[in-house]
Amino acid sequence: MDFPWPNIGTALADVLTPMPVIDETRLAANIARAQTYLNGHGKAFRPHIKTHKIPAVARQQTDAGAIGINCQKVTEAEVFADAGFDDILITYNILGAARVARLKALNARVAKLRVVADNPVTVDGLAKAFGTGKPLCVLVECDTGAGRCGVQSPDAAVALARQIADASGLTFGGLLTYPAVGGAAAVETFLQDTMGKLAALGIDCPMRSNGGSPDLFSAHLVPSATEHRAGTYVYNDRSMVRAGECGPDDIAMHVLATVVSRPTETRAVLDAGSKALTSDLLGFADHGEIAGLPGARITGLSEEHAVVDLTGCSGPLPAVGAQVQIIPNHTCVVSNLFDHMVFHRDGIVTRVEPVAARGTVW
Amino acid sequence: MDFPWPNIGTALADVLTPMPVIDETRLAANIARAQTYLNGHGKAFRPHIKTHKIPAVARQQTDAGAIGINCQKVTEAEVFADAGFDDILITYNILGAARVARLKALNARVAKLRVVADNPVTVDGLAKAFGTGKPLCVLVECDTGAGRCGVQSPDAAVALARQIADASGLTFGGLLTYPAVGGAAAVETFLQDTMGKLAALGIDCPMRSNGGSPDLFSAHLVPSATEHRAGTYVYNDRSMVRAGECGPDDIAMHVLATVVSRPTETRAVLDAGSKALTSDLLGFADHGEIAGLPGARITGLSEEHAVVDLTGCSGPLPAVGAQVQIIPNHTCVVSNLFDHMVFHRDGIVTRVEPVAARGTVW
Repeated sequence: MDFPWPNIGTALADVLTPMPVIDETRLAANIARAQTYLNGHGKAFRPHIKTHKIPAVARQQTDAGAIGINCQKVTEAEVFADAGFDDILITYNILGAARVARLKALNARVAKLRVVADNPVTVDGLAKAFGTGKPLCVLVECDTGAGRCGVQSPDAAVALARQIADASGLTFGGLLTYPAVGGAAAVETFLQDTMGKLAALGIDCPMRSNGGSPDLFSAHLVPSATEHRAGTYVYNDRSMVRAGECGPDDIAMHVLATVVSRPTETRAVLDAGSKALTSDLLGFADHGEIAGLPGARITGLSEEHAVVDLTGCSGPLPAVGAQVQIIPNHTCVVSNLFDHMVFHRDGIVTRVEPVAARGTVW
Repeated sequence: MDFPWPNIGTALADVLTPMPVIDETRLAANIARAQTYLNGHGKAFRPHIKTHKIPAVARQQTDAGAIGINCQKVTEAEVFADAGFDDILITYNILGAARVARLKALNARVAKLRVVADNPVTVDGLAKAFGTGKPLCVLVECDTGAGRCGVQSPDAAVALARQIADASGLTFGGLLTYPAVGGAAAVETFLQDTMGKLAALGIDCPMRSNGGSPDLFSAHLVPSATEHRAGTYVYNDRSMVRAGECGPDDIAMHVLATVVSRPTETRAVLDAGSKALTSDLLGFADHGEIAGLPGARITGLSEEHAVVDLTGCSGPLPAVGAQVQIIPNHTCVVSNLFDHMVFHRDGIVTRVEPVAARGTVW
């Protein structure tokens, strides 16, 4: 397949659809706004690269003052290590000899690499591989209400911290949580309790990492956290507007699409399906919003089609061939579908970046 | 990123997760079963390559007797033309000068290339570009109840057929529908009505293409159709079992995953999230089934995690580090997330195929 991405200087109206595009002005403003807020509260910022998966965008984030980056998988971190990032936190239980061996190779070449664990099996596997060479820094992941990974109590966190501290090839780095939205009080209580118990045992707990874009601008409500992690804030999306974390004018990603069919007066079909948007609903009843077309509802997606119900629209309706801009429900998952990402300023393409860490699930 | 796919001869237990894997025996049986059924009813078969996106698998399908292939987009068809396929139907309204120019280049090198249109704007665009050179064969897409693309009535189909037949660079190829599930009677009525009206005008209608895996084994209920198109049948998935089109033992794709956390007695977390499964629900309330673990429910997905509720399980529960096999809700969308696909026979890797048409949305 030839390269379908546009040249620099192309107008968005001439870009082959479906194509996600990033507004440079809004991107820069989102990066600055988050960093300024966290600087103002004396908290370190560690952006999660899952949203963009692009080293050049991560460099914009660290240039603005972020102390390092957050990855989810070893292969994802390898991409950013290759690009020169030297402070990487992998927020995942890394299991299996093959994967841990790759982690060990990564640890040898990244100045500050940290991982998390929430169970003794993970810590055992790491301890076996890291008996020799540069020690690995491991944080304990805590479940403060989100109901995903994490130890369930401060006592369990302390027990795991002791296991890490006692392993010769590991160092205990601190505590980490990916909290429930609005869970600041629960996070602070969990961290304080655990820090108290660790202090009583003489175990140092240097890093307390809190996270999530929906809670980014309430990071100051968790004084015990030393840093905050967030991904989605960099592009923003429909879910972030709903969460009140940004306004519609802060959304940097749109998915350009073309009306390919108007079978009835009230139905339009777009060329952006689940291969362009994914089917992530994030609690919405439909699959994204169409900018400038209030009342239109994307009621269904198949792989290459979006079906739009125009019943609720007033005013002129888009004809076959018209280009529209979709505000996706969830921006991070869109980035994972495209090999390159198109950036623009005022509707003129400024650069096309490889999405270098697309597809890194290992 | 180094190549994380396994070598031939690797046991599935040693494959890095998350990883979709295809059972060669079931794949071959699915291909044979569909072809035998359609042969028995004297109907041509045109598999949709969206499910696998792999030329080698499409070759298995044509070797078994399929007359050609079905693609959705021009760039997808280019991949299969490069691999030597010479009978390709693109079931899409192809719009815009840049895309139509690529289509024209493709038409010049593929012996039998056909596209569809459901509106005059699409036909106009094709007619402008195809005034010279090899004519393009265009079918009229009909909406027989699925509510996606397609003209709404036999009269509208006839009007569009006349527009195509009257354009000097186009030839009218026939009718196409992607029907509602169980819509055989509506398809047959629409086709018969339209064919009658076309015959009265002296317009030949050589191909009548019906489609869908959920209706594959009722293709004989539409006698006016000359061919059937289907994609999902080749791998099958949870949605096909629910539709009664296959049994659990006909599912050729599983997604291997590892238990990375057991935060509570009743919660497991797997390393297969929406980047491995997508969040396609297809009407299910959860995100796939875990083979051999009845009662387990994948209640939530984030990009790299699946949260499993084990409350309904009896018997031994999987520990941290255990490998499980997920039956995905929807197999086609999983194929679009991976650059390579792993095949196995009796649990031993037989080949690793590039998913050559992954990401071709244009």
